[in-house]
Amino acid sequence: MAKPLRVGLAGVGTVGGALVRLLQRRREDLAARTGRDIAVVAVSALSRGECGPGLEQAAFYNDAKALAAEGDIDVFVEAIGGSDGPAYAGARVALSRGLPLVTSNKAMIAAHGLELAALAEANGASLSFEAAVGGGIPVIKTLREGLAGNDVRRVSGILNGTCNYILSRMESEGLPFDACLAEAQKLGYAEADPTFDIGGFDTAHKLAILASLAFGVKIDADAISVEGIQSITLADLAAADELGYRIKLLGVAERTAKGVEQRVHPTMVAKSEPLAQTMGVLNAVTIDADAIGSLTLVGPGAGGDATASAVAADICDIARGDVAPAFGRPIGALEDGERVPMQRHEGGYYVRMSVVDRPGSVAVFAKRMGERGISLEAIMQKRSDMSASASGFVPVVLITKATTEASIREALELALADGVVREKPQVIRIERA
Amino acid sequence: MAKPLRVGLAGVGTVGGALVRLLQRRREDLAARTGRDIAVVAVSALSRGECGPGLEQAAFYNDAKALAAEGDIDVFVEAIGGSDGPAYAGARVALSRGLPLVTSNKAMIAAHGLELAALAEANGASLSFEAAVGGGIPVIKTLREGLAGNDVRRVSGILNGTCNYILSRMESEGLPFDACLAEAQKLGYAEADPTFDIGGFDTAHKLAILASLAFGVKIDADAISVEGIQSITLADLAAADELGYRIKLLGVAERTAKGVEQRVHPTMVAKSEPLAQTMGVLNAVTIDADAIGSLTLVGPGAGGDATASAVAADICDIARGDVAPAFGRPIGALEDGERVPMQRHEGGYYVRMSVVDRPGSVAVFAKRMGERGISLEAIMQKRSDMSASASGFVPVVLITKATTEASIREALELALADGVVREKPQVIRIERA
Repeated sequence: MAKPLRVGLAGVGTVGGALVRLLQRRREDLAARTGRDIAVVAVSALSRGECGPGLEQAAFYNDAKALAAEGDIDVFVEAIGGSDGPAYAGARVALSRGLPLVTSNKAMIAAHGLELAALAEANGASLSFEAAVGGGIPVIKTLREGLAGNDVRRVSGILNGTCNYILSRMESEGLPFDACLAEAQKLGYAEADPTFDIGGFDTAHKLAILASLAFGVKIDADAISVEGIQSITLADLAAADELGYRIKLLGVAERTAKGVEQRVHPTMVAKSEPLAQTMGVLNAVTIDADAIGSLTLVGPGAGGDATASAVAADICDIARGDVAPAFGRPIGALEDGERVPMQRHEGGYYVRMSVVDRPGSVAVFAKRMGERGISLEAIMQKRSDMSASASGFVPVVLITKATTEASIREALELALADGVVREKPQVIRIERA
Repeated sequence: MAKPLRVGLAGVGTVGGALVRLLQRRREDLAARTGRDIAVVAVSALSRGECGPGLEQAAFYNDAKALAAEGDIDVFVEAIGGSDGPAYAGARVALSRGLPLVTSNKAMIAAHGLELAALAEANGASLSFEAAVGGGIPVIKTLREGLAGNDVRRVSGILNGTCNYILSRMESEGLPFDACLAEAQKLGYAEADPTFDIGGFDTAHKLAILASLAFGVKIDADAISVEGIQSITLADLAAADELGYRIKLLGVAERTAKGVEQRVHPTMVAKSEPLAQTMGVLNAVTIDADAIGSLTLVGPGAGGDATASAVAADICDIARGDVAPAFGRPIGALEDGERVPMQRHEGGYYVRMSVVDRPGSVAVFAKRMGERGISLEAIMQKRSDMSASASGFVPVVLITKATTEASIREALELALADGVVREKPQVIRIERA
C-alpha cells in the first residue's frame, strides 16, 4: 500500500466534524478504494476544545493559515466558510505550497475561484470543490468528467434548500411566505437573517460555479441577474397549480446566441419536470446538453453528512492521484463569458395583475401587449374573488408565448400608465424543457 | 500538449457511429479538457463500407480481435455488444496487451466483468464501462467516485427504457400490455423478440454491475431473482394509482442482515418518489447511503448519442490518466456476496385476487394471513365491477405491512386450497423509501 494521505482540516464545525467521523467510519473501505490510508493528522480551530473525538492525536493550530503553511500534511481541507478571512488566507497559502485544496466553500469559490485555480495550476496543486454546490450531489464531477463529451446548452437547478422548503410548504400547507420562513428558521433551515438565502444570493454563488464548469467560461458572479422569492404569494402558487406549473427558485445558466445568460429567479416549471417534483429541502440540477439530452440529479443540498460525502469524494480522488483541472479545462482555456443583460432574456412569462373592473380594460391591456409583439398563450380572469371585485379591480393571470424581458416590461409600464392595471404586476419567468 | 490518445474502435453501429461523430464534434474542447488530442485511428467492422464519415484515414480491420492485437492504438473501445463472441475476444486480447478497455457492453460485463477486471489489473490496464448501465447517466462514476465515502444501503433503479415505456403508456393511455408492447416495437423501443427486455433480464445484467460497485461484492448475475412485467394488468395500474403508487420494473440491490439481496421485479413505488415520476423511456437510479441519504439520477438509458456521451467520458478519464479500479476496489478486495434467496425477502406486498363472493370468504382469507403473522395496511373490495360479481367472484386488493416473501406465498397457497380465492393472485412487492 502507498504511503498514507495526511489530511489537514481547517474548521471542525458541522462539515468538518462530519468529515472526521466519515473518514474514521469508512477508513478501511477508503483504503481499499484508494490504496492508501487517509487520516486527519492536523486541524485548525478556534480552540482545541472544539475538536471532537478522533482528533486527539492530530496536531493543533488555532489559525488556518498556520496549518496551511506549517502542517505536515498532503492535502488541505477548508471547512470554515466565508468568501474571505481565514478560509481564503489558508487556501492561498496551501496552494502556494503546492498542496491540493479541498473546500466546501461556495462563497470563496464564487469570489476567488478563478484566482485560486490559477494559483493551483501555477504550483502543480489541485483545487476541488464538489461540496460547494448541491451539497452531497456530485454535480461538479458530473459536469467536469461525466459529461465531458457534451456541449452543454443549459444548467438549471434548485440550489438552495431554504427557498425550496419555503415554497414547498407554502404550496402544501397554504401558508403565506412569512409563516413558512418563520417555520424554516425554527427548524434551523434558515438563518436569523435569511436575506442571503431567500434573496437568491446563495443560489447565485452556486450558479456562477456551475456556469463556469458547464460552459468553460470564467466565473463571473456579478454577471448574474438575481431575484429572490420574497414576492411570491399564495395567489401565484394557486395560479401556477391551475396552469400546470410549480414555482421554484431556479438558478439558470444558458448558452444563447447572445452569450451565456446567468439568472436566479422564481420560475414556473411544468409539473412533469423533475425540478418541479423536487420538494422540501432537497436540491436538484438538470443539465441539458447535445449528446446526453437531459440529465437530472436530485439529492441533499446541505447538512453535515451529505456535505462531508462530497468532501470525502474529492479527498479520495486526490488519494488516487486523479486531479482534473478545477473548472474542467486549464485556466488559459476558459473564455470570458459574454454577459447577457436580463432585458434581452427570451422566454415565456406569467403575469398576475389587478385590472380595473370595467368594460374594455383588458382590451387596452391586450393592445399594449400586441404592440410589443407579445402573443398570449393563456389568460385567466376570475370573478369569484368578490373582495377584489368590490374594490373595483379583478385579478387577471396570463401566460405569454416567448418574448423578451424588455418587451414584457415595456408593455406592463404602458398598461400602468394607461391606468387599467393597479400597482406593479407580478412577473414570473417560465422555464421550458 | 501531451501526445494524442489513439482510439481503436470495434463496432461502428449506433453507439460506435455516434462516438465517432462526438469525438469529431467536440475535438477541440476534449483536447482542452484532457490536454491531448483524441482521435479514432483504427476501427473494426464487418466491412469498410459500414464506416461513416471521419473514418477514411483510420486503419481498418474486419475482426475486433485483430484490431485489439495489432492496432497501433492507446485504448480499445468495444461497441459491438453480446456477452461473448468478437466483443469478448477483442476485450481479452486488448487487456492482455495492457491496453485500457472501454465498453458499453452490459451483457459482457455482467458475465465476464470480474475476469476482465482481473485481467486488467494483472496487465496494468484499466476497464471502464460507464455506458453499460443507464446509458448516458454517469451512475458508474457516481458509485465508484462520487459516493466513495458512503456505506451504500440500497441501489434501486429503472434500468430498462422499454419496460418503463410500456408501463408508462399502459398507465397514461389505459391500453393493455400487448398493445403497448406492439407500439414500443413499432417505435423501435423494443426488439422483435422482446423477452430480454420485458422479462427483466436486461435490468438484471445492469443491476449485477451496480451491486458490485455499490457493495464491493463480486458480480454474480445468477444471484438475481428476476420477474418481468408481462403479468401487469390495467387493473393493477388502477389499483396502484388509487393507493398512491405507480408500478415500475425496478432492479433493487440491498444490503440486509442476511447478505446482499438482488432482485428485479415489478414494484409499487410511492408517487412522491423520483423513481415513480420517471416516465417513458427514461432511466433513473436512486442510491440510499449513510452519508448522502438519498441521491437520484434521471436521464436517457439508451440511444446512440447518450451512450456515446458515457463512452466519451471514460475515454477522457483515460486521456487524463485517471484509472480508478473497475469496480471501485481492487479485485482482491471484492467480497463474495452472500446470496439471499427471494423467499427471505422482507417488505410490504400488494396482492390482487378474485375472492369468492359469499359471506365469510374474506374472513377465511384474512385468517390465513393472520396465521402467518401478516398484518394488513389497506384492503380495497369493490363491488362496482358487475361482471366480476356476476361470475361469483369479487376483486379484492390488499396491501400488507412488512412480512417475508415466504409468509405471503404460503398464506396465498393456503387460501387457494381453502377455495376462497380464484386462480393465482397477483403479487407485487412494495419498495419503501
